[in-house]
Amino acid sequence: MPMKETQITQETPYLLLDIKKLDANIARMQTHLAKLNVQLRPHVKTNKSAQVASRFFDGAEKPITVSTLHEADFFAQYGFTDILYGVAIAPNKFEHVKKLILAGTALKLILDNLQTAKLLLDFASRHHLPVNVLLEIDSDGHRSGLPPCDAEIEAIAQLLQGSLVTICGVMTHAGNSYNSKSIAEIEQYANQERDAVVSSADMLRSLGVNVSIVSVGSTPTALFSQDLTGVTEVRAGVFAFFDLVMAGLGVCELNDIALSVVTTVIGHQKDKGWIITDAGWMALSRDRGTANQKVDQGYGIVCDLQGNPIGDLIVTAANQEHGIISSRSQGHVEHFPVGTQLRILPNHACSTAAQYGGYHLLNLENDATPYWERINGWA
Amino acid sequence: MPMKETQITQETPYLLLDIKKLDANIARMQTHLAKLNVQLRPHVKTNKSAQVASRFFDGAEKPITVSTLHEADFFAQYGFTDILYGVAIAPNKFEHVKKLILAGTALKLILDNLQTAKLLLDFASRHHLPVNVLLEIDSDGHRSGLPPCDAEIEAIAQLLQGSLVTICGVMTHAGNSYNSKSIAEIEQYANQERDAVVSSADMLRSLGVNVSIVSVGSTPTALFSQDLTGVTEVRAGVFAFFDLVMAGLGVCELNDIALSVVTTVIGHQKDKGWIITDAGWMALSRDRGTANQKVDQGYGIVCDLQGNPIGDLIVTAANQEHGIISSRSQGHVEHFPVGTQLRILPNHACSTAAQYGGYHLLNLENDATPYWERINGWA
Repeated sequence: MPMKETQITQETPYLLLDIKKLDANIARMQTHLAKLNVQLRPHVKTNKSAQVASRFFDGAEKPITVSTLHEADFFAQYGFTDILYGVAIAPNKFEHVKKLILAGTALKLILDNLQTAKLLLDFASRHHLPVNVLLEIDSDGHRSGLPPCDAEIEAIAQLLQGSLVTICGVMTHAGNSYNSKSIAEIEQYANQERDAVVSSADMLRSLGVNVSIVSVGSTPTALFSQDLTGVTEVRAGVFAFFDLVMAGLGVCELNDIALSVVTTVIGHQKDKGWIITDAGWMALSRDRGTANQKVDQGYGIVCDLQGNPIGDLIVTAANQEHGIISSRSQGHVEHFPVGTQLRILPNHACSTAAQYGGYHLLNLENDATPYWERINGWA
Repeated sequence: MPMKETQITQETPYLLLDIKKLDANIARMQTHLAKLNVQLRPHVKTNKSAQVASRFFDGAEKPITVSTLHEADFFAQYGFTDILYGVAIAPNKFEHVKKLILAGTALKLILDNLQTAKLLLDFASRHHLPVNVLLEIDSDGHRSGLPPCDAEIEAIAQLLQGSLVTICGVMTHAGNSYNSKSIAEIEQYANQERDAVVSSADMLRSLGVNVSIVSVGSTPTALFSQDLTGVTEVRAGVFAFFDLVMAGLGVCELNDIALSVVTTVIGHQKDKGWIITDAGWMALSRDRGTANQKVDQGYGIVCDLQGNPIGDLIVTAANQEHGIISSRSQGHVEHFPVGTQLRILPNHACSTAAQYGGYHLLNLENDATPYWERINGWA
């Protein structure tokens, strides 16, 4: 399928999003979750774009997960008002939280310790601000959260009982599922996620807490969960774009990856079998997420402009604005002429997309908007 | 020295630039280059800020190096019109180059092959556009450039002779100096850089080319060069901020690093000796530049809010918006209360700064502007 002339003459490097693949990836997740009878609360940290986030929904309800309050501000503007901020709240963000809540956002915060619960309760009381929170449960030892059914959960519930800070649910994230060696292992993590939050929700209910949200999610566990009894919603984000890390896990095929970086050949070092391009680590990100997988993809797999991988070419090295392409097997390298445009499949969609202010679009049904803005940063 | 209240209440994560350290780092480079009688053409790819770039200069001449044409647009607006674009030009950028030149920018492009030279000559001829170029010389096998005194240099000179495309100089960049194991090795690279361009400049002069710019530069070689006879200018960028990679090379002290990320403690996993913060890889960048140095600094060295390293704490792991701090030696970790603010010294100033839209300032003599904007991206 030929790309549009406007895309071909666009200055490189730029970020290209294939809408057909995006929609297919979203449909796959929705079909899977519908079978399990849970709602999707997509994590928009990967896309940070109102137009991309809109592709997840066709009804009035548009629950999302954000990774920054800046995302919350941005998405609330576009009518996404049911927002879970998926990082434990810090005191210097209380004022920002207040603004969002007073502006009508149904914001949900995360707590995983009594210290912060006390600070938040104090803030909410002083400002007469009703705040909804979820308790974060650690299901896999990956980073944050309280152990399932931990005594501190009870202490927080007692502290907040009858106060302006309402516990409305529990959540967890099995970040270790990204390091799985098999689909069977991913399924195990999915069960661990479910058991951790369902047991903690039951514990809270036995303490009189009205738990309405039981939230799990990572792209691998979301796609391979078989039984989510007791879970109400799934948070996942990278599944909409996919990337080489997900392909390396066996979670998607290379052909499912909706995001790529378009780059131009600017020179060669023929003796070394190198093609030099204008997409360095600034364009691809420094993410080397496949470095510890079975197949290390360098800084990305090299495709032609139609998205088909070329031999075993990968981006083997990167400077700030220079990429070096060579053959993984040190085999023959066709030296495309200067000016040739190529597409690079990224290791990690979240980090690569974050290097750009927006998406150029491929296969959009309506040509009116060939570019979708995204946001970055924290303010 | 206490930080200003406005900085302490700023939402984290944010980027903090210490102006006193910035100025001292710039003065060190200027003093060194003045002794060697060469001009500084700072690379602004690290700072991407008009206010930071202004600290390099006190006269009317403000030659700079840029890594993107977007930087060229931006800096030209602020009166930096003598601009070297330090990446070999690609044909899809010719129209942009034309706009810059027609707007009065004294833009200099880089060529390292006959193919691009022909394409550029064709474009310049069709558009009656005078273009100045430098030939890129490969002094260390690191990425781009023609071998010193290569036959292709002569071929390009012959092609362009008497045309609208004027060769005004030669340039090189010893990227491999970043992997040096000693200052002696850095000095060797500095000599290699000098010899590569000076010999190529002589070759061009013997062909009748009027070579006025002989340009070298990387932060390590610039700071430790002893004799730059025949060189006219030095390009370097990261020296103004410094970072852990430069400290690991012995090029600066930790205390010289002007850039840090301010973060907040949001939780703990005490059993594991972990402090959880709100500066993950999005705030610190995925750059693990010290991973192959003698001392791997993880995602950065942890300091108190005054900038003093705390024990042997480093950021040992990072998710998108979560940082995990622990002791390098698995020693005791003081569990700072939730809300405690810390500063992280970054591996690589260029990549960390690129995660932000601007700099919060420390030790600025004039309090009028506590925030300096920077640009990112390519358009």
